[in-house]
Amino acid sequence: MAKTIKIIGIGAGDPDHLTLQAVKALNQVDAVFLMDKGPAKDKLIALRREICRRHLTERPYRFVEAASPERDRDGDYAGQVQDLNARKQDVFERLIGELADGECGGFLVWGDPSLYDSTIRIVGAIADSGRHDITWEVIPGISSIQALVAKHRTTLNRIGSPVEITTGRRLAAGLSADVDSVVVMLDAENAYEALAESDAFEIFWGAYVGTPDEILISGRLKDVAGEIVRRRAEAREANGWIMDSYLLRRDEPKS
Amino acid sequence: MAKTIKIIGIGAGDPDHLTLQAVKALNQVDAVFLMDKGPAKDKLIALRREICRRHLTERPYRFVEAASPERDRDGDYAGQVQDLNARKQDVFERLIGELADGECGGFLVWGDPSLYDSTIRIVGAIADSGRHDITWEVIPGISSIQALVAKHRTTLNRIGSPVEITTGRRLAAGLSADVDSVVVMLDAENAYEALAESDAFEIFWGAYVGTPDEILISGRLKDVAGEIVRRRAEAREANGWIMDSYLLRRDEPKS
Ligand SMILES: C[S@@+](CC[C@H](N)C(=O)[O-])C[C@H]1O[C@@H](n2cnc3c(N)ncnc32)[C@H](O)[C@@H]1O
Ligand SMILES: C[S@@+](CC[C@H](N)C(=O)[O-])C[C@H]1O[C@@H](n2cnc3c(N)ncnc32)[C@H](O)[C@@H]1O
Repeated sequence: MAKTIKIIGIGAGDPDHLTLQAVKALNQVDAVFLMDKGPAKDKLIALRREICRRHLTERPYRFVEAASPERDRDGDYAGQVQDLNARKQDVFERLIGELADGECGGFLVWGDPSLYDSTIRIVGAIADSGRHDITWEVIPGISSIQALVAKHRTTLNRIGSPVEITTGRRLAAGLSADVDSVVVMLDAENAYEALAESDAFEIFWGAYVGTPDEILISGRLKDVAGEIVRRRAEAREANGWIMDSYLLRRDEPKS
Repeated sequence: MAKTIKIIGIGAGDPDHLTLQAVKALNQVDAVFLMDKGPAKDKLIALRREICRRHLTERPYRFVEAASPERDRDGDYAGQVQDLNARKQDVFERLIGELADGECGGFLVWGDPSLYDSTIRIVGAIADSGRHDITWEVIPGISSIQALVAKHRTTLNRIGSPVEITTGRRLAAGLSADVDSVVVMLDAENAYEALAESDAFEIFWGAYVGTPDEILISGRLKDVAGEIVRRRAEAREANGWIMDSYLLRRDEPKS
């Protein structure tokens, strides 16, 4: 009998981001896999345990923990991530090995599993390898982007216009000229600062969105960039880690 | 006493896309505003009524319906949408006028309110006008994009790469060279067909995603474009309307 793997998006900080579909999926799971890492590890694992305690109420289940490999900072970024994913795949295969035939295991993914997360790619590779008899599915979750703009009560796109979702690393390498709304994730280096001279942008920034530590700042980038740098450094210092993202909106060309 | 307005994302077709936060928000509402339009109107209103019947169980509530103005197809697209939104704002103000002081009204928005939807913009404009004493908030919802890629069990972005979310209209005007993952919504004209010659793309297409009528097709764009055109026309004919979207992924440059 095949094993079942559910990749479940759990939202980006607020336990009430969970969907009814995610609650139903959780309640079919025998084993919840936990493999967070980094300085926020304890908080992230605590939130997952809390979600299970509150919502996985219809059957017995167990947690299966594994140490998540860390990215080796040699070589180019895509190469580092590929190498990391290969090592993660070994860990995932061991976790799946902990399931008995016919059992179901759940990966609880932060935000939405489709955005800057490797779980789908890795579980897909394991399924394709044929080494494990698994069936698998993905349950979408509220991403941090959606949580961010909802709290700022703004939209992602301007009317009829595109939105780009990108990383701090890419933003630092330059902004496409034809995009007027850009969401930036994974920015450890305050890449928005490089645009703060231009007086052509609004920013909607948020850290720890959806959690009790939430900080929101918005305004003309030129005016608030300094405040964001400062608040970000303070919060990071106080908590030992930070998760933040932002929407940049370029002014409309005057016509 | 101020009136409260909640803009609640309800997900993109599957009633179980609803989040726990949305269920809680629904249960604070006195009046649910319904103002769908177009050929899918009956289905869209029926889904909202069904969601309320199932989940708005903690207090009495009423539905307040209004005819939604339709877009006038004269002038450029952004102008048409702006004109439409001005007329929609009148309708919204009348709906808010139906609330007694201290009451709460809810707009149930398809998918996520931040994507190609005018409710946030219009309610924001009403609040800014000062004509109504309202407090308002936004509850994020699963967007059709997330539902689409979850069903295809794929990610939005390639590792470390950006994603662009755009419209059929924009895609028809050309694809940015520096983006390798593009999600297209609001495409009434099969804009993907123009790229089907090039043999450089994969496509993940879906219609009515999350509903019982769901259709999913994926593969090399070159190979499946014809099938998508055909299935899309058939489904549209059979149902009288269609809602579809897709992710295009450009092949990685060979290095
Ligand atoms: C590895 S990515 C994972 C994204 C996740 N899958 C999602 O859908 O939000 C982590 C990045 O998401 C953003 N992020 C996640 N949670 C956040 C939160 N609660 N507030 C602000 N940004 C957040 C940050 O930019 C962080 O660097
Ligand atoms: C006006 S936009 C609203 C989008 C919505 N706010 C969201 O978050 O999905 C409507 C477009 O969303 C896409 N869409 C909405 N629901 C869909 C579904 N169930 N399946 C496929 N595409 C859908 C289609 O591209 C459609 O033209």
